[in-house]
Amino acid sequence: MKVSVHVSLKPGVLDPQGRAVHHALEGLGFEGVADVRVGRLIEMEVADSTSDEALDEMCRKLLANMVIENYRIEKLETA
Amino acid sequence: MKVSVHVSLKPGVLDPQGRAVHHALEGLGFEGVADVRVGRLIEMEVADSTSDEALDEMCRKLLANMVIENYRIEKLETA
Repeated sequence: MKVSVHVSLKPGVLDPQGRAVHHALEGLGFEGVADVRVGRLIEMEVADSTSDEALDEMCRKLLANMVIENYRIEKLETA
Repeated sequence: MKVSVHVSLKPGVLDPQGRAVHHALEGLGFEGVADVRVGRLIEMEVADSTSDEALDEMCRKLLANMVIENYRIEKLETA
């Protein structure tokens, strides 16, 4: 099955990459942008037998840094 | 409104970061992972008046590299 993991910085954690993108958007003339945060999107193809606990463990051990990041697991399809 | 932009590598484009994550997951003992691709997740707070065309232009001009990446725009809420 396809699994999509969304990793984003926790609120309050400084995001220099997001600020750079925000600044660049303004420089390009786009108006009305109030805030930009940049995170990671990890798309995995895993065996259908993979448990939710295993997916959770992957995120906690490797995919996300739990000190500064949140994650959200989304199962896209079960083939 | 909150807008979420998902940027991922086009199929066929080599993804060294994804391979490294895949390898690390196997090294940690997780089985059944067939493929891993890493992309970006850009969360923006924009004015409600921002048009779809403007969002599309932001992606094409700055947020995604159209040669090797695809993007998907998701509007999350209109406050």
